[in-house]
Amino acid sequence: MRIDILTVVPELLQSPLNESILKRAQKKGLVEIHIHNIRDWTLDKHRTTDDYPFGGEAGMVMKIEPIYRCISELCSQRHYDEIIYTSPDGEQFNQHEANRLSTLENIIILCGHYKGVDYRVREHLITKELSIGDFVMTGGELAAAVISDCVVRLLPGAIGDEASALTDCFQDNLLAPPVYTRPAEFNGWKVPDVLTSGNFAEIEKWQDQQSFERTKQLRPDLLK
Amino acid sequence: MRIDILTVVPELLQSPLNESILKRAQKKGLVEIHIHNIRDWTLDKHRTTDDYPFGGEAGMVMKIEPIYRCISELCSQRHYDEIIYTSPDGEQFNQHEANRLSTLENIIILCGHYKGVDYRVREHLITKELSIGDFVMTGGELAAAVISDCVVRLLPGAIGDEASALTDCFQDNLLAPPVYTRPAEFNGWKVPDVLTSGNFAEIEKWQDQQSFERTKQLRPDLLK
Repeated sequence: MRIDILTVVPELLQSPLNESILKRAQKKGLVEIHIHNIRDWTLDKHRTTDDYPFGGEAGMVMKIEPIYRCISELCSQRHYDEIIYTSPDGEQFNQHEANRLSTLENIIILCGHYKGVDYRVREHLITKELSIGDFVMTGGELAAAVISDCVVRLLPGAIGDEASALTDCFQDNLLAPPVYTRPAEFNGWKVPDVLTSGNFAEIEKWQDQQSFERTKQLRPDLLK
Repeated sequence: MRIDILTVVPELLQSPLNESILKRAQKKGLVEIHIHNIRDWTLDKHRTTDDYPFGGEAGMVMKIEPIYRCISELCSQRHYDEIIYTSPDGEQFNQHEANRLSTLENIIILCGHYKGVDYRVREHLITKELSIGDFVMTGGELAAAVISDCVVRLLPGAIGDEASALTDCFQDNLLAPPVYTRPAEFNGWKVPDVLTSGNFAEIEKWQDQQSFERTKQLRPDLLK
């Protein structure tokens, strides 16, 4: 898989994309992540990527030209399955979408910044608008990092223990059951007896029950 | 405001917390962000922060002892308004919660990793569980970065143009209207005439209408 990320703050993405699982997945050759500084696609000497909005609203807007140039160049080199724009008013990104993206070959993620991009970028260049939630961040860089992390850890071979990913939250529309590790008692707080019983049939039953109960209590919407 | 982040991968947080608005807000003294490596609170020579789960499930679980030691130490130094745990099954983090957190004095954010923390941490030490969305990441570090970014940019003085934050998505339960900047025509694609008309009453009317129409179409749930 190949992920191209377009940003005006490339340095912000350095550590999230180069540590932990994303680092290992790139080393193993499971994914190539390329960060493009949109500033490198400007033609003026001030390397301008943003400008005042038409209509006089507060804030700055990302200009279409450098983005158009960068995306056009990338698309002339290979086919992209999705050209994603991260924006708080995009479609909600979720585990289902992460699963889908993890099956694609090449994707571009354009990070919004300031008040966002010139709307013509969204109308003409973008194939998918994704939001990671109903909140506003300084820019789309963290959203791009979140999406990349979620997607890359699903690539076969990315995490050591694949069985672990299968029991993650949301993979079966249920929240995970509570987990405990040693010591069995700490500060007077004990782990549930069943987990130390050695009776695996009982343990599995308890875990399924806890998953269901927690989902019913915390996220009834997932059970619909 | 003071934010203490507890993590087993402190290096992952380096660039998100030290660039852009978070960097400036720290320089201006609006916020102090302290990153704590949970490993520093272990007592064994291998500095073990995780262990196998009771009950034999796949994956590793973060141990309670070092987390307990770190949180106890911090809480002995000052009062914390919230001790947050980032987890995909937590309460949905949104702009409303960002607004609330931005009014607090001191918060702790504990980043989950692997299969999560020993459940006793959640039962006894945590005051708030937050999720940034229905997806699973390698760890809670990006969630902590997202929460910190959303909250810090709301602190008075954090962003240059405060009027800009007021017209962000979600602050009034409406999506933002489309924005455009120069050139007025690019590649045959023109900005809407009204925005270049100079008639500010008309422009404002158009923007309000677009906000409402886009919200109705894309996020009818926000209008309920």
